Amino acid sequence: MTKSDLIKQKKAAAEKAVEFIESGMLVGLGTGSTVKFMIEGLAKKIKNGLDVKTVSTSNATSNFAESLGITVLNFNDVEEIDITIDGADEVDPNLNGIKGGGGALLNEKIVASSSKKNIWMVDSTKHVELLGRFPLPVEVVPFGINQTLNKLFLLGYKPEFRSAAGKNYVTDGNHYIIDLHLNKIKNPAELNNKLLLIPGVVDTGLFLEVCDVLIISADDECKIILKT
Amino acid sequence: MTKSDLIKQKKAAAEKAVEFIESGMLVGLGTGSTVKFMIEGLAKKIKNGLDVKTVSTSNATSNFAESLGITVLNFNDVEEIDITIDGADEVDPNLNGIKGGGGALLNEKIVASSSKKNIWMVDSTKHVELLGRFPLPVEVVPFGINQTLNKLFLLGYKPEFRSAAGKNYVTDGNHYIIDLHLNKIKNPAELNNKLLLIPGVVDTGLFLEVCDVLIISADDECKIILKT
Repeated sequence: MTKSDLIKQKKAAAEKAVEFIESGMLVGLGTGSTVKFMIEGLAKKIKNGLDVKTVSTSNATSNFAESLGITVLNFNDVEEIDITIDGADEVDPNLNGIKGGGGALLNEKIVASSSKKNIWMVDSTKHVELLGRFPLPVEVVPFGINQTLNKLFLLGYKPEFRSAAGKNYVTDGNHYIIDLHLNKIKNPAELNNKLLLIPGVVDTGLFLEVCDVLIISADDECKIILKT
Repeated sequence: MTKSDLIKQKKAAAEKAVEFIESGMLVGLGTGSTVKFMIEGLAKKIKNGLDVKTVSTSNATSNFAESLGITVLNFNDVEEIDITIDGADEVDPNLNGIKGGGGALLNEKIVASSSKKNIWMVDSTKHVELLGRFPLPVEVVPFGINQTLNKLFLLGYKPEFRSAAGKNYVTDGNHYIIDLHLNKIKNPAELNNKLLLIPGVVDTGLFLEVCDVLIISADDECKIILKT
């Protein structure tokens, strides 16, 4: 797929996602390139009279949404979110997915778990049979990070610190990210439990039983899959 | 038990614990009042020629140990720890325990999980049949803390923010602590897994299959229980 085709696909999925938003809703905004297109679409609808408030999963998303005139509330001041729209790095046929390529997995998971409905947008390349080709992000606390990396290494998970500008990448929550090169994840729930039991692991990029509506953009049109 | 009896018991357990430390060892130092007595005992032995280095589980412990002339290494610069000595708030007959009354549960758990041997010191009042009378500390990230509290409330766990000087208590890792008033924990492993699956929960005060040697101080002498 060419880069311009990919952008076209992301825009198509984002447009479809915005159709789910209704006046009066509290909307959770994910993080990432497809989410940015969705936020642009939402801003247009708000200018045309749609009345919604939002909460955000990252500083990047907050800044972008506010720059387009969208009201972003403090997440700690709200109760349940009506709908959260986010991207994903991989999604399997059960609508389980890997997220966190953009580094916002922890806040995305917290917001998703407080939302009545979660909508994910992906392009066709991210809809896979088995999760794991995309490196699995694991958010870890800085204290004892070398020991945590070593534990993941001894478990055979091929861990690698995520870096940015030659230093460890730092999340909005002041944690680090270790990416696991697993290739195939045969039992996502079992792996998730095992990782969470490692002291120092804050959360993983495995989002299981979270997605309610998956929008997959292909060349011609978007395909929508609902959780069964 | 009077306060002076309690101090006597703590000192007795601490003295017994120090006997496990040998020259050449890398020693993990826990956090809390009994640990302070243990550190004082260790400092004396170091002055008498014992050659050990240490790592610490909290800023409080680092400061105290260094004030007594003990070498505290950066935990990220060491490999495996030979022995870690810590207190506990409750321990059951299987040597599973609750820790975190002092607020250092996360670092304590990370250090414990990197130690070949873990020794816990408790006075006789903390040796219980069933865990849970002591409130279970859960370390949580600040983002979405009200939603996290609400999830714990809906699960029936009677959660309460830990506070200090009228504000939320902040851990060394810049997280908050929510104490769960459970009274009885029938299945600690199941509860631990369930809590870790809640997004925003960093770790819990349930230390399961961690303790190798339990030193229980009573009026006359210390009782030692080894993990079977």
